Amino acid sequence: MPQARVHVIPTSAPDDVSGLETLIAQGVLDPSRLVAILGKTEGNGCVNDFTRAFSVMALERFLGPHAQGVALVMSGGTEGGLSPHLITFESLDDTGESDAPALAMASHVTRDLDAHEIGTQAQIECVADGVRTAISKAQIRGPDDVAFVQIKCPLLTAERIACALYPTATTDTLKSMGLSRGAAALGVSLALGELDETTANIVQIGVDLNVFSARASTSAGVELMGHEILVLGMSAAWSGPLIIDHAVMSDAIDTAPVASAMSRLGVGTTATLVALLAKAEAAPSGAIRGRRHTMLDDSDISSTRHARGFVGGALAGLTGRTDLFVSGGAEHQGPAGGGPVAVIATKRH
Amino acid sequence: MPQARVHVIPTSAPDDVSGLETLIAQGVLDPSRLVAILGKTEGNGCVNDFTRAFSVMALERFLGPHAQGVALVMSGGTEGGLSPHLITFESLDDTGESDAPALAMASHVTRDLDAHEIGTQAQIECVADGVRTAISKAQIRGPDDVAFVQIKCPLLTAERIACALYPTATTDTLKSMGLSRGAAALGVSLALGELDETTANIVQIGVDLNVFSARASTSAGVELMGHEILVLGMSAAWSGPLIIDHAVMSDAIDTAPVASAMSRLGVGTTATLVALLAKAEAAPSGAIRGRRHTMLDDSDISSTRHARGFVGGALAGLTGRTDLFVSGGAEHQGPAGGGPVAVIATKRH
Amino acid sequence: MPQARVHVIPTSAPDDVSGLETLIAQGVLDPSRLVAILGKTEGNGCVNDFTRAFSVMALERFLGPHAQGVALVMSGGTEGGLSPHLITFESLDDTGESDAPALAMASHVTRDLDAHEIGTQAQIECVADGVRTAISKAQIRGPDDVAFVQIKCPLLTAERIACALYPTATTDTLKSMGLSRGAAALGVSLALGELDETTANIVQIGVDLNVFSARASTSAGVELMGHEILVLGMSAAWSGPLIIDHAVMSDAIDTAPVASAMSRLGVGTTATLVALLAKAEAAPSGAIRGRRHTMLDDSDISSTRHARGFVGGALAGLTGRTDLFVSGGAEHQGPAGGGPVAVIATKRH
Amino acid sequence: MPQARVHVIPTSAPDDVSGLETLIAQGVLDPSRLVAILGKTEGNGCVNDFTRAFSVMALERFLGPHAQGVALVMSGGTEGGLSPHLITFESLDDTGESDAPALAMASHVTRDLDAHEIGTQAQIECVADGVRTAISKAQIRGPDDVAFVQIKCPLLTAERIACALYPTATTDTLKSMGLSRGAAALGVSLALGELDETTANIVQIGVDLNVFSARASTSAGVELMGHEILVLGMSAAWSGPLIIDHAVMSDAIDTAPVASAMSRLGVGTTATLVALLAKAEAAPSGAIRGRRHTMLDDSDISSTRHARGFVGGALAGLTGRTDLFVSGGAEHQGPAGGGPVAVIATKRH
Repeated sequence: MPQARVHVIPTSAPDDVSGLETLIAQGVLDPSRLVAILGKTEGNGCVNDFTRAFSVMALERFLGPHAQGVALVMSGGTEGGLSPHLITFESLDDTGESDAPALAMASHVTRDLDAHEIGTQAQIECVADGVRTAISKAQIRGPDDVAFVQIKCPLLTAERIACALYPTATTDTLKSMGLSRGAAALGVSLALGELDETTANIVQIGVDLNVFSARASTSAGVELMGHEILVLGMSAAWSGPLIIDHAVMSDAIDTAPVASAMSRLGVGTTATLVALLAKAEAAPSGAIRGRRHTMLDDSDISSTRHARGFVGGALAGLTGRTDLFVSGGAEHQGPAGGGPVAVIATKRH
Repeated sequence: MPQARVHVIPTSAPDDVSGLETLIAQGVLDPSRLVAILGKTEGNGCVNDFTRAFSVMALERFLGPHAQGVALVMSGGTEGGLSPHLITFESLDDTGESDAPALAMASHVTRDLDAHEIGTQAQIECVADGVRTAISKAQIRGPDDVAFVQIKCPLLTAERIACALYPTATTDTLKSMGLSRGAAALGVSLALGELDETTANIVQIGVDLNVFSARASTSAGVELMGHEILVLGMSAAWSGPLIIDHAVMSDAIDTAPVASAMSRLGVGTTATLVALLAKAEAAPSGAIRGRRHTMLDDSDISSTRHARGFVGGALAGLTGRTDLFVSGGAEHQGPAGGGPVAVIATKRH
Repeated sequence: MPQARVHVIPTSAPDDVSGLETLIAQGVLDPSRLVAILGKTEGNGCVNDFTRAFSVMALERFLGPHAQGVALVMSGGTEGGLSPHLITFESLDDTGESDAPALAMASHVTRDLDAHEIGTQAQIECVADGVRTAISKAQIRGPDDVAFVQIKCPLLTAERIACALYPTATTDTLKSMGLSRGAAALGVSLALGELDETTANIVQIGVDLNVFSARASTSAGVELMGHEILVLGMSAAWSGPLIIDHAVMSDAIDTAPVASAMSRLGVGTTATLVALLAKAEAAPSGAIRGRRHTMLDDSDISSTRHARGFVGGALAGLTGRTDLFVSGGAEHQGPAGGGPVAVIATKRH
Repeated sequence: MPQARVHVIPTSAPDDVSGLETLIAQGVLDPSRLVAILGKTEGNGCVNDFTRAFSVMALERFLGPHAQGVALVMSGGTEGGLSPHLITFESLDDTGESDAPALAMASHVTRDLDAHEIGTQAQIECVADGVRTAISKAQIRGPDDVAFVQIKCPLLTAERIACALYPTATTDTLKSMGLSRGAAALGVSLALGELDETTANIVQIGVDLNVFSARASTSAGVELMGHEILVLGMSAAWSGPLIIDHAVMSDAIDTAPVASAMSRLGVGTTATLVALLAKAEAAPSGAIRGRRHTMLDDSDISSTRHARGFVGGALAGLTGRTDLFVSGGAEHQGPAGGGPVAVIATKRH
């Protein structure tokens, strides 16, 4: 039975690979077994955030041939006290242990989209197929055992719009990021059975925000035209001490469901928190529990930066940790103003 | 016996006084009994934040002669999901009730400082005297019954530095804000017996950050050269359902002491949360619980903005409320990277 | 014959009226003759810029009944070295001088729009009527003698959208500012004969950016639902030493047409520069003279802030002055990426 | 006789090397002859600007062994309409031409400083020695023929301060950037004879801003502890069509001296502008020609960003070009609020 291994590694800069290096030297990280590396980098997380690409370049340079096939998903923005870090996901060979079920994972890369497919039903279908494939690869029995699907999806650039064969969903490049994140999330939703085919065919992407996935986390990047999908879940075919559960925050300060998920995993008693992944966004309504927020009216700080720092604070207050993977832009990922959360823990011996 | 009344009033803009107007029309707020109005406005909370002065101008225009003698303390910055609001503090006449002890309050205005006194031991002494006077006015028995001291203190401008009779503590106007906040906080500390005279005479303001008040909250403003002091505490000479307690967060995510204070007040069982006041700052060490934060290195967003949003998230996650008075710049107010918190609740009938 | 008087008054803060006060005390400014006050305030010039409203509140408080009927048009944003200031426009009685033609001016307030009219052909018509009225009031012979039309126009808020009787042009409040500015500019264009009725009926507001006025400068504000129009031009019915001319910059660094306008007025020889008003925007193409700019991709600084600072620098380098009225958001005001400029000078004796 | 070759290459992102690649493919750029590459990247130009290091990593990856010994000096910040670009400096072998004097250049790397030397007289001496060496390498006859000295200098980090053998000049890392830039500029001043040894020994770095170099441009970077020096000047020992001259702007809008330098080179008549390098800063006095600026009070945008955009606008308005190397932080580089400028042109045949 395969076994997952996860490390959360602090970084001192976007190009800092010294933590990886140390773990490899210590023999506790095997670069040839890497499935994915997620990273929080300290840029603004918006259009001109080059810390993501810088981090990827540094990782590729460091990993060399081992980088091949590894999903490298960087999320910009460590606002407030959030701490830049990498999360490595390794799939180890059968270790003789049989502590099943346990955390299972697999990554999958979809076909490239044509520019006019971004942010449309075609993207929903493409992602749904990809997620189904990854679930199968991960030997996860079915959608119900999936805890989290992290996706890197494409966006439109001025050049891609100009070269498109058919009209694109938008001509606004920033808006295309939201549409692509939203369509990718709906693709997850379809694959997980949260959404039926009929609704998938008629849902208005970016508009019908009450249609969402409780387990999707998507981010758009300029460097690909397809999708890099990482599926995380529980499987009886995997062994080891790692376990995962998920929650949905209904708004930016709704920490109770996360506390429940941690409790279900035994965090604080039989288990220890390893990593937490969450999506954050400014409530489009302009209010949280009936009280006005100013995130959407602030022309000095992007609302995504506000949201990450604030939700990051709520989750750090809950967990006592600041190296949390809180990512912005939660279109169709959890309810409007809220977002999905995954909690990974390790059982104590 | 006097009785305190406190309203938390949402605002739709810095100059929005409609909430006040409504409460007065409803007969539940008497402008002639106002002792202080604290407000969170939606500016950047830094040097060029004009929302504070705009709010004060609107309040003075609205209150007319009633504004006389009312401490108007505006704090800029509602980062993350924090919600702009006003907190009114009224002192009502003897109402026949005898639900003592209860929340007690008084305000006091100190003499104007000379420019060269700002950020020095002279300011510490001046504030300590003022706080003692306010405690006495509020009929609070002694320092131990004081829960929170909110102070508006002066700052240096280029013009004040140029006209000063003696050299000023700094020639950097932004730095003068921190020194003034720090000296005012140490003045509170001295008045409350947290600090002895000998230490007060030798403490290096802005440097010896391990010397702090657990109950001071100070903010600097250009519009005064003295101090507006608001003392809040418990007193057997006051009646009514309002009660107050305080806590110290040791770092930005240390919500446990606040939960304890709420618990001591019976919030959630015998009492209901009315208002929460807190100070926030980016840990000068550059780390929270050993994990690097990036607030001090971000040249796009001031660290005070990061800190308010993040600590605001932690406290909103705890309390389920976003209309919290979270204020930045916590020099000598709580330990470095942490800050003092006051919780006001009302007993349920 | 009436005579125009113009003062450019430095301000030390958005609410600074001391310069006005001094000029009134000196007898060189008569508040009862004010037609308009334009002001550059030091906010971000975007959605949450409260320095404009703060300045208006301070001016209204200071002017008292004299504020009645005076167009108060504040433009936020003094990026780079631009200097905050007020420009007062007075219309004095016949002074016996007959130095005609001279600077002529008049202001006019249009009817309030319904929310669904903002950013539509209805707004174009409404503004065109208002501009024609103002031209007539100003005794300017015809459109060709108009040099500049400054307009404050309305915008949509969430509340206005919700209460609208018919669907609004957009549900995005920020976008409504651009549509309103654009429609108002096209209204000027129609009144000045730059645009014919047929085109006005079919032009796509915010899209057909090659249709523009060479003399319109419009800014959107939340505080009105109609338009405050200030028309400036030359008229044989006015006397005095003030003269005005205009230019169109074809891009952000196209200073030559401005130099020509100054030269035509005799600035530097027979005349002295009094005031300069200009619009600035980031070229929507993403390039200036074929070289990429990054203003539209910067998620930390709004492109309007970049554009004001940069164009401000170009015009300050040309004129040797930094108290220039450079305003952002130039939809249908000059060609895409460029903008109209007005130059006011005074003849030397 | 050696001959200089200079290319100005637009970039589409910090890691874009496609322009270099094209020129190499076309045979007009020989990577083995590179002396230096200067680059403007689109970050914030402040502490957390990773676009500089990203660009260097991309250039080193692309150039491979050719990167050895090439000074790679990246300057962050393309505010306003400034355009990201690289400037390559090659030194070609004797080409048979004898169009002397011509642009001459050489680079030199100094010894590493100890942390406590940064921002002190020791750094002044170290840089002065290095500049003298580079002048000699470049076969420039003497200081008077030097037009510009571009230096990358070190800065203090929290770690370097902690490990320092002796007390450092400051414990504020941001401030150390200014002190290092200032000391490096004074080192240039000493080497060029603008400053005498006696004054160099007593000048207060960062304080005595009236002591400055008219030809130094320095920027601090975390990646080195020594200095990378690039000296540019005219020399009879070099041939070819490239020529250089310099100017000093006395304030942010003082374009006349630059126009004179361009005129002396014959730009527009016998020569064509190739590249312009300039330093910009917000006047520490808070005013430009007696009019207040707001750059130093803006807590949302760093003053260096304001200054680059504004001075960039002034110089772009003058030259008609936006791919200008305008760099921020001009301590002891030109007078306070102004800065040195170098103009490189090529003679027309």
